[in-house]
Amino acid sequence: MEDPAPRSGSSSFVWLVGASQVVGLASVVLTGVWMGHYRGGFAWDGSAQEFNLHPLCMVLGLVFLQGDGFVAVFDFHRAAKIPNMYSLHSWCGMATLILFCVQWVMGLMFFLFPVASSWLRAAYLPVHVFCGLVLLVMAIGSCLLGITEKLLFSIMPTYSAFVSEGVLANTLGILLICFGVLLSFLITREEYRRPPNPEEEALSVHFKTLTEGGSPSSP
Amino acid sequence: MEDPAPRSGSSSFVWLVGASQVVGLASVVLTGVWMGHYRGGFAWDGSAQEFNLHPLCMVLGLVFLQGDGFVAVFDFHRAAKIPNMYSLHSWCGMATLILFCVQWVMGLMFFLFPVASSWLRAAYLPVHVFCGLVLLVMAIGSCLLGITEKLLFSIMPTYSAFVSEGVLANTLGILLICFGVLLSFLITREEYRRPPNPEEEALSVHFKTLTEGGSPSSP
Repeated sequence: MEDPAPRSGSSSFVWLVGASQVVGLASVVLTGVWMGHYRGGFAWDGSAQEFNLHPLCMVLGLVFLQGDGFVAVFDFHRAAKIPNMYSLHSWCGMATLILFCVQWVMGLMFFLFPVASSWLRAAYLPVHVFCGLVLLVMAIGSCLLGITEKLLFSIMPTYSAFVSEGVLANTLGILLICFGVLLSFLITREEYRRPPNPEEEALSVHFKTLTEGGSPSSP
Repeated sequence: MEDPAPRSGSSSFVWLVGASQVVGLASVVLTGVWMGHYRGGFAWDGSAQEFNLHPLCMVLGLVFLQGDGFVAVFDFHRAAKIPNMYSLHSWCGMATLILFCVQWVMGLMFFLFPVASSWLRAAYLPVHVFCGLVLLVMAIGSCLLGITEKLLFSIMPTYSAFVSEGVLANTLGILLICFGVLLSFLITREEYRRPPNPEEEALSVHFKTLTEGGSPSSP
């Protein structure tokens, strides 16, 4: 981590990273306000307040921190005798989680364990980068579907009257889209890519060596 | 159009393009079956059958053909006295349409009219390509939100019992995601990019000249 600065475009890079973090944090805060203020707060007792942990954990985890948090909604469904996995939101969300796990295991096998040759690593790297971006977009899409579902289950009669909860949740959706666009732009620009450090150079796990097909440690 | 073949990876390119078209067409057919068979067919008289044109036109137009088709839903809302633009689906859909128009006008100004310098064209091109991909993803995201809205407005009591309409519409959503992932992969891979033809070379509007900053027609 001795030279973490991008090669060029440093000024716009800093501003875009800053903006993405502000928008991402605002999304987390807005989810917290929606669930905490409008939907009755949080609990872990099978009540509707346990469901409220689900949107917060997913936005905080899968979108903002890329973690996990699926248990709350299944536990709430079990207590309230609501079937699982029937909605498009649940299908997209589960596909995102499963693909996220596949991506994690594949990354571990190709880049951490010494099973893959330098050639295989180089061939897999762009697919791994692409799949990571697809996962981010799918996570955000799943959030938007969850927002729409929650609003129609909770406030269908008043949603069309522009009540504050509906406007807040819609705004959250737009913020999540902005977060995804900013992150996608930052990830896909060549000029924002961090140059490899000496440690990565020796292990030949950095982007430049892999994409150029060479490896200092291969015969 | 004398040399439309990509530089390399022709075999996988052909298969991926074929797969994307099959999945895209299947999405259009599934939307047609959903609206035509389950939702009562099509009409242009302010009835619910006029609304049914909206999903079909949007999937066919904004996703599969990148056209337009917003009139049917506003006309249906007016006749049925339903407020416009209150839902997250409408916000995302309208944002997509507005940004699509902005993208179209910007493209016209930068690449067709001779107002932009070669340097400006080169600077704008990657942004234009990125925004095109964002628009495709936003169009698909808006479709998924529309699917969820339509299902909850129409079959909320039976959706959780895995009725066939719900499963068909969910499958449509997953197909649209697959279509988006396939197209995104095809668009972002360097090896699938078409080499410039002589006409584009002379006009310096092709990707290679623009990204390398040179132009045979600039002083």
